[in-house]
Amino acid sequence: MNRRNALISTGLFPLSMSIWRQAEEMAINIPEGLKILFQGDSITDAGRNRGSYYANDGWGMGNGYVSFAVKQLLGTMPEKGLKCYNRGISGHKVHQLANRWEDDCLNLRPDVMSILIGVNDYWHTLTHGYTGDLKTYRTDLDALLKRTKDELPDMKLIILEPFVLKKGTAIKESDWLPMFDEFRMASKDLAQNFGAEFVPYQSMFDAALSKADTAYWCPDGVHPSMAGAHLMAQGWLEAFSRLNF
Amino acid sequence: MNRRNALISTGLFPLSMSIWRQAEEMAINIPEGLKILFQGDSITDAGRNRGSYYANDGWGMGNGYVSFAVKQLLGTMPEKGLKCYNRGISGHKVHQLANRWEDDCLNLRPDVMSILIGVNDYWHTLTHGYTGDLKTYRTDLDALLKRTKDELPDMKLIILEPFVLKKGTAIKESDWLPMFDEFRMASKDLAQNFGAEFVPYQSMFDAALSKADTAYWCPDGVHPSMAGAHLMAQGWLEAFSRLNF
Repeated sequence: MNRRNALISTGLFPLSMSIWRQAEEMAINIPEGLKILFQGDSITDAGRNRGSYYANDGWGMGNGYVSFAVKQLLGTMPEKGLKCYNRGISGHKVHQLANRWEDDCLNLRPDVMSILIGVNDYWHTLTHGYTGDLKTYRTDLDALLKRTKDELPDMKLIILEPFVLKKGTAIKESDWLPMFDEFRMASKDLAQNFGAEFVPYQSMFDAALSKADTAYWCPDGVHPSMAGAHLMAQGWLEAFSRLNF
Repeated sequence: MNRRNALISTGLFPLSMSIWRQAEEMAINIPEGLKILFQGDSITDAGRNRGSYYANDGWGMGNGYVSFAVKQLLGTMPEKGLKCYNRGISGHKVHQLANRWEDDCLNLRPDVMSILIGVNDYWHTLTHGYTGDLKTYRTDLDALLKRTKDELPDMKLIILEPFVLKKGTAIKESDWLPMFDEFRMASKDLAQNFGAEFVPYQSMFDAALSKADTAYWCPDGVHPSMAGAHLMAQGWLEAFSRLNF
């Protein structure tokens, strides 16, 4: 097999002429007009222009995993009329999501919601005098998800594991571990309780560290690089592909 | 084949656990530390932060096809130490690239240069009183490519076809066609003359219009949407995969 055939067979560089066929296979069972909401903190926000809040607006998707995942969805399923929204806001913890939940989730009535929250629920106890703890995080997130499911019972949920890379420039390992592991576990427990798809970002990043260092994937330990955003998008797309419509 | 297997077999949603294997196949023959430069106008610029000019800086990649392609490259080839630069500037024509060529191309000494230029070389004759014509475009681009190849004889070149979608909100078809077709043809001729890979964006977008309308792919007829950026990135990655190192 020559190199070009190898590239094509991996599917990472699909031949443009075959995109339509692939998209048709991929889109089986995905309902038309599906509304997908990305919720979270700075990792989701990724510098989006908050004034660009309409569905599928590139300026409103930021510069991270959401932008990559949404380009992939819209680029490969043009006939589905998908509507994608990014409502991540930098610095937010669960209780701050709850404060804006009517505008930034319930009123949008998403068919799929993806949520990545938790790193600030721990970090801000170190840096901002935040007095919430693990129990606060778990209780607040449980309540938020319950409120959402009560209002939108048919919504599919994707919970993204919060993560930290311990050699990041903003991270002092002894300040974070093992305490932060409990926050990760809480997000996983809640994913199970709510029947959500779960994306294990911590183990994905840990595995990636055998290929390149923290500076390559996530320089400060919290905010991913372009390579890290790609890794996150792959995990997200894989979870999305597991949803049953 | 159930839906999940269908998704995986298309390769558009690769399983994260197989990314490394795929990346290893893909990276065969790609030299370590390869420097890749994206040059062009607003479609390449795509709102990049020009102060973020270091290699692989996400804020410096903009919001378009470059951002997607670079995330894909960096995310799938972590061991290669690739260095990617975006130096597109909104509004530029060939002679404006030439004015900044030492800083924005020659001094960077790229191993691969991708260039998308030409839409303003025509558009600004309609809107800005620009007096260059087809001959100016062809002569200027030929000279720029010759200057580049003289200085960097081993550099690989990817020429991206300028394109226009005739139902775009900024486009009056009778003002653009068939005149603009000659600019597209000139870029293709030069690609052949310089032994460059060529990406036929016009026919790619024209084919995409059977799936969704101009508003979906490229609302104003010149600047692609997220879906259009994905289409462009696929074409770019395919051309990149054809380069022989």
